[in-house]
Amino acid sequence: MEYYIGIDLGGTNIAAGVADGNGALLSRVSRPTDITLPFGELMERLADTGKYAAETAGIPLADIVSVGLGAPGCIDLQTGLLQNANNLGWVNVPLRAELQKHFDCPVYAENDASCAALGEIRCGAARDYSDMIMVTLGTGIGGGIILNGEIFNGCDNMGAELGHTRLVYGGRKCSCGQRGCFETYASASALRKDTRRIAKKHPDSLIVRLSGGDPSKATPREAFDAAALGDPYAEKLIAQYIDWLAAGLSSMIVIFRPQAIVIGGGVSAQGERLIAPLKERLFANTISADQIGIPDVFAAKLGNDAGIIGAALLGKKG
Amino acid sequence: MEYYIGIDLGGTNIAAGVADGNGALLSRVSRPTDITLPFGELMERLADTGKYAAETAGIPLADIVSVGLGAPGCIDLQTGLLQNANNLGWVNVPLRAELQKHFDCPVYAENDASCAALGEIRCGAARDYSDMIMVTLGTGIGGGIILNGEIFNGCDNMGAELGHTRLVYGGRKCSCGQRGCFETYASASALRKDTRRIAKKHPDSLIVRLSGGDPSKATPREAFDAAALGDPYAEKLIAQYIDWLAAGLSSMIVIFRPQAIVIGGGVSAQGERLIAPLKERLFANTISADQIGIPDVFAAKLGNDAGIIGAALLGKKG
Repeated sequence: MEYYIGIDLGGTNIAAGVADGNGALLSRVSRPTDITLPFGELMERLADTGKYAAETAGIPLADIVSVGLGAPGCIDLQTGLLQNANNLGWVNVPLRAELQKHFDCPVYAENDASCAALGEIRCGAARDYSDMIMVTLGTGIGGGIILNGEIFNGCDNMGAELGHTRLVYGGRKCSCGQRGCFETYASASALRKDTRRIAKKHPDSLIVRLSGGDPSKATPREAFDAAALGDPYAEKLIAQYIDWLAAGLSSMIVIFRPQAIVIGGGVSAQGERLIAPLKERLFANTISADQIGIPDVFAAKLGNDAGIIGAALLGKKG
Repeated sequence: MEYYIGIDLGGTNIAAGVADGNGALLSRVSRPTDITLPFGELMERLADTGKYAAETAGIPLADIVSVGLGAPGCIDLQTGLLQNANNLGWVNVPLRAELQKHFDCPVYAENDASCAALGEIRCGAARDYSDMIMVTLGTGIGGGIILNGEIFNGCDNMGAELGHTRLVYGGRKCSCGQRGCFETYASASALRKDTRRIAKKHPDSLIVRLSGGDPSKATPREAFDAAALGDPYAEKLIAQYIDWLAAGLSSMIVIFRPQAIVIGGGVSAQGERLIAPLKERLFANTISADQIGIPDVFAAKLGNDAGIIGAALLGKKG
């Protein structure tokens, strides 16, 4: 059997695991990211976390085929340079080269949302497909595009920033400095903000009761729960959220016509509560849907492991 | 020397020409499309127009390497079926197979906007690039995507409908049934409508004078001319148009990060009047532009010949 180390570098935690060739995780470990560390030391911590994952799984490093790293930002495939990762404050750091110093086997590095998409298509929700788009709904919207079974990140691996496509010209201000980006409406953070706004505005909403009476503690989960229980404010909020999500995804559909769309991030735990109405809105929002249909739509299956598994499988041809 | 026939099937005219291996046109002929003809007869007319182009160029059919056809709608590369072409009223017609009956050499068929993009990258405005996106601003917005020198039309060749990506959620009604599609704001038709609306509303606008006093005769050309002469209504109109165009294109940039963007269609004849402010707005409208820049932006160079030349070169590897 062949084994692969996958490392997922997040803003808060470094998660790592060892996967076999089928993408099954044999171990899963994590350590805090600590972005105050100098680059070289943080990369050493990344390497140590990966090695610790191997130790935990009882796999000697000599049996590891390759190490894969998923990180936020744009990673140039040729040079292995991480071009910019806003939330880590790094610009043009030699991500892959630095990590390679700690391992004898080949080291690969890719955008984290792309790794998650690779995980889901190789052994998750989109296992039977070759072309899919995954959006991870979190603080922003991470985009992962798989074409012919391989990650597609645009030219020089600098694209696929699906969260910053335009949904509402002149709309909400985005952290990127633009207005109306997809993620200012359809990320989990956007939904949390909208939920709290609605909860504050309507103290009689079931959202407030489910949040222990404190509107500022309301989360998307309470909004979905309240909507499922028939609260009209929550129903309207969730319907609007899903329509935004569908309208943004419809742009991806008309460009790529993928076979499948996978929704990741915490919100995807809502399962059919999210997916069923999303399909309906996607059908209504996409040109030629009545003639050529829409892609199959799934909630992600691998959860937080998708990024580790996908990173691990970077070194294994599909 | 090798020669190629290119045929461009439009809603009004069939245009055809013979190109050499460098994409230089040796002839150019055209005949009316007449969409009232039965499919088989119209395809025969297409073939005849192509053969007449060869005759006009003085090239015997035996010296023709291949025939390429550009047509509106989605063309399945595997089957050569035209899946749907709204303005021709065709669904699932065997485009390539029917045309092949009339030629002994190989016949290729592709979406017309993709052919135009191929023409511009092989021997037009984007000749020095390998990755580019072309938008043809006409009745709608045709999208042509070239990655690694080859046409990219999404999965099963059914994508790249850039005109129907979302620019304004809940915005203007589009002919496709959706709202807020890119082309309802940034096509040439949209600009013509907006120009006439502004001209009607402001009889003192220079647009009206340049249109012979009749607001209902105003075109984008008068709007650009009036703006260049300092008419404030026209200046505002053109600035808004270019900002919409930039905002829509910024979505393509963040997804694909192409090296170049080419603007085609009648409006592109405005040259630097369009391109210079468009670059400025693209820079302002695109995430990370200050770090990684924006693609080079050009007006199309081949005009109406791009579609013929690109179709002709479908059979020639880049």
